[in-house]
Amino acid sequence: MSAPVSLPIWLNGRILPHGGAGVDTADRGFLLGDGLFETMRVAGGQVRHLDRHMNRLARGAAAIRLPPPDRTAIAVGIAALLDACGLQTGSLRLTCTRGVGPRGLLPPAQVSPTLLLTAAAGLPPATPVRLVTASYRRDGGSILSRIKSLNYLPSILSRMEAAEQGADDAIMLNHAGFVAETSASTLVACIDGQAVTPPVSDGALPGTARGVLVDAGIVQVGRISPALLRQATAVFTLNSLSVREVVEWDGVAFPRRPDLLATLRAACQG
Amino acid sequence: MSAPVSLPIWLNGRILPHGGAGVDTADRGFLLGDGLFETMRVAGGQVRHLDRHMNRLARGAAAIRLPPPDRTAIAVGIAALLDACGLQTGSLRLTCTRGVGPRGLLPPAQVSPTLLLTAAAGLPPATPVRLVTASYRRDGGSILSRIKSLNYLPSILSRMEAAEQGADDAIMLNHAGFVAETSASTLVACIDGQAVTPPVSDGALPGTARGVLVDAGIVQVGRISPALLRQATAVFTLNSLSVREVVEWDGVAFPRRPDLLATLRAACQG
Repeated sequence: MSAPVSLPIWLNGRILPHGGAGVDTADRGFLLGDGLFETMRVAGGQVRHLDRHMNRLARGAAAIRLPPPDRTAIAVGIAALLDACGLQTGSLRLTCTRGVGPRGLLPPAQVSPTLLLTAAAGLPPATPVRLVTASYRRDGGSILSRIKSLNYLPSILSRMEAAEQGADDAIMLNHAGFVAETSASTLVACIDGQAVTPPVSDGALPGTARGVLVDAGIVQVGRISPALLRQATAVFTLNSLSVREVVEWDGVAFPRRPDLLATLRAACQG
Repeated sequence: MSAPVSLPIWLNGRILPHGGAGVDTADRGFLLGDGLFETMRVAGGQVRHLDRHMNRLARGAAAIRLPPPDRTAIAVGIAALLDACGLQTGSLRLTCTRGVGPRGLLPPAQVSPTLLLTAAAGLPPATPVRLVTASYRRDGGSILSRIKSLNYLPSILSRMEAAEQGADDAIMLNHAGFVAETSASTLVACIDGQAVTPPVSDGALPGTARGVLVDAGIVQVGRISPALLRQATAVFTLNSLSVREVVEWDGVAFPRRPDLLATLRAACQG
């Protein structure tokens, strides 16, 4: 999203120059998508909602039977990388894999996870977005819909599909035809005067910004059919980095609600 | 499966020592599972069914909108690695990712894929297996069920689930409850005197050994319900590396058919 900036990285406890060979060719994250990640906003030189990110990471680790990630090591790494980058505003990405393993699917008896932190200066644009509908259907019953794993091809393909149609992103429905989310954002729709977001059981990733808004009572969790979405009086996409207005979806234009946009942004980013 | 052996690797045109840092920390294969792989059997110092593997790789690349993999470069790499390893019997794994990219989901305008070849001496055991049923359900309608992508967490989790129950592998059903495959093998069941394997539309990966057997008319493609499987007079799992007898599944014991085992092995590996 933002242009690549050659900031240093943090890999398994060490600050290294940006990019270049750093990952073992036998890492299960690379060979099998066997890992998790978190994308976190940095504001005022601090990671926002770090506890929410670490809690989700821990839930994801439990779901894929990975040892609980070392929060202290991660906190030390975050501080070291922010310092090395002098980063005030931007994002950090934490990648946590099951590390190096022998051939085959079963992990080694002793797992030594790989932890990678990368930084990006600046934030992606928060301009209004146009959406289409992805052909891929999310599986609300799958464990993979509830965790932020490295198995990200469905989102990549949905985003590419949107780009090919000149759109910014794509709404992913679930098998029952209800709205789940977009390729990397929570969807929030204003319906009957209430801001609503799809339930996790419909395939919505439990996003951190989503969690902030639901916990604050600003957004209610409720099932959203395409028919209901068409009647929305405002629609937004949001994740840890930005809150954006949806101005169009599959040819349906939505009104804009600057007041609600401001409320959502204040809650997520305040 | 086999013990790790410190054989050299081939990475983007170069022979390198085994393991160690070789993958760029910004590789989309590592960060997003954005890639494909093939596991190929080596016999008599040659890769078996290379055309089938390259054809499946090409179909997978088209499905994820990756430029067609460079068959010549891969063939040159295979020859170089087999030579460097002096490998006569074993396996090669080819990993092909969308390479390094900037932050975000969209690939760069100019994609430079990462190609990695690794070798393993010897083959996994072809001893009889005991199966359970995985809790994960495969989605027969998903593009991801038809390609061998790096999004391999469902298979990893199913195999771990099997191991926790003292079994060798797990049968994955699809959402409609029909048999799809096991974590990394095609399932073949002898039903009413005919060897049958589930259709791709039920969530079976189009495996190369499966393709050999179906094309030879030895195995028919047909839907297999759990009720039908219980009545099978012999069951096998097979992939590019081995053909194995299934002696038990969820407490149901299956007869063994050494004659059919020999036929399947001769066809796949002859």
